[in-house]
Amino acid sequence: MVILGIDPGFAIVGFGVLEADRGRQRLLRCGTITTPAGRPLPARLVQIEDDMSQLLETFRPGAMAVEELFFNNNVTTGIGVAQARGVILAAAERAGVPIFEYSPSQVKQAVAGYGKAEKRQVMEMTRRLLGLSAVPRPDDAADAVAIALCHARSSTSRLALLDPATPGSGRYAVRDRGGDFSR
Amino acid sequence: MVILGIDPGFAIVGFGVLEADRGRQRLLRCGTITTPAGRPLPARLVQIEDDMSQLLETFRPGAMAVEELFFNNNVTTGIGVAQARGVILAAAERAGVPIFEYSPSQVKQAVAGYGKAEKRQVMEMTRRLLGLSAVPRPDDAADAVAIALCHARSSTSRLALLDPATPGSGRYAVRDRGGDFSR
Repeated sequence: MVILGIDPGFAIVGFGVLEADRGRQRLLRCGTITTPAGRPLPARLVQIEDDMSQLLETFRPGAMAVEELFFNNNVTTGIGVAQARGVILAAAERAGVPIFEYSPSQVKQAVAGYGKAEKRQVMEMTRRLLGLSAVPRPDDAADAVAIALCHARSSTSRLALLDPATPGSGRYAVRDRGGDFSR
Repeated sequence: MVILGIDPGFAIVGFGVLEADRGRQRLLRCGTITTPAGRPLPARLVQIEDDMSQLLETFRPGAMAVEELFFNNNVTTGIGVAQARGVILAAAERAGVPIFEYSPSQVKQAVAGYGKAEKRQVMEMTRRLLGLSAVPRPDDAADAVAIALCHARSSTSRLALLDPATPGSGRYAVRDRGGDFSR
């Protein structure tokens, strides 16, 4: 199955496309959607929605994974990010792609094996797990790849649900504050 | 000119449609877009975007006015509202409708003449200014009408720019945290 990981933003949207097959993952593509800073926000949102539709059309993923949104740091930037996230979710819904949401600690746990892992540990484990020669660039793309990887590894861990020794077993996150994302 | 006022939300979007002509405003229609609570958020966002497009197609407004978003009270709800606002802005942009943004105090100032007016004062002045027999229902629709009224009255006040005695002169808000909304 192809998994699309998304790191939402209104200036930069990171994306990562993985092929996941029997517990192994391969990076197909990663990159960013960027919108020009001088452009009015509504035009940037339309561009993000159109580019997302293009991405979904090109790779036809079986699942889209997005990180949960927290507003700890900058609420002003957060509003812009949430608005962009709205059009990203709408684009995936229109494409009929199931959406899964993970918290930052779930991503860290699934990729680095530790929910409080540092960012560079997550990046390095992303590189290793995918057998890449370098960490994907820029950071937004690398974050998106880690989120896709989290979904791939969380999904396969479902198969190990009966094994209590497997950390993270069954932590198959399909929740959102606005409602259940599963169908 | 027809002005569409919008009070964004993911459960309820309030809308108000005014005809504004030479300093006089008439209410054409107001109401709400509601999305079912049990439905996953992405499906609700798509519905809001589609219903907004329908509304824009039906009334072909010359301007859309939206209230600025603040996250003072409930950040969790705020994320959902901001996501809905994203698809609302995108729908207006696709329809080629210029978007104007006002702060709550600008709406209060323009409608009730006092930036710290209470909600019921704003509602009552909305009723009086439009010559209605009752305040529009529900609150979300009434709020949207007040926002449209704010735009109508802020726009006409531009004509009084040279009159320093006119309060609010030239306070023609086209700002957003994410960039200038004017074109």
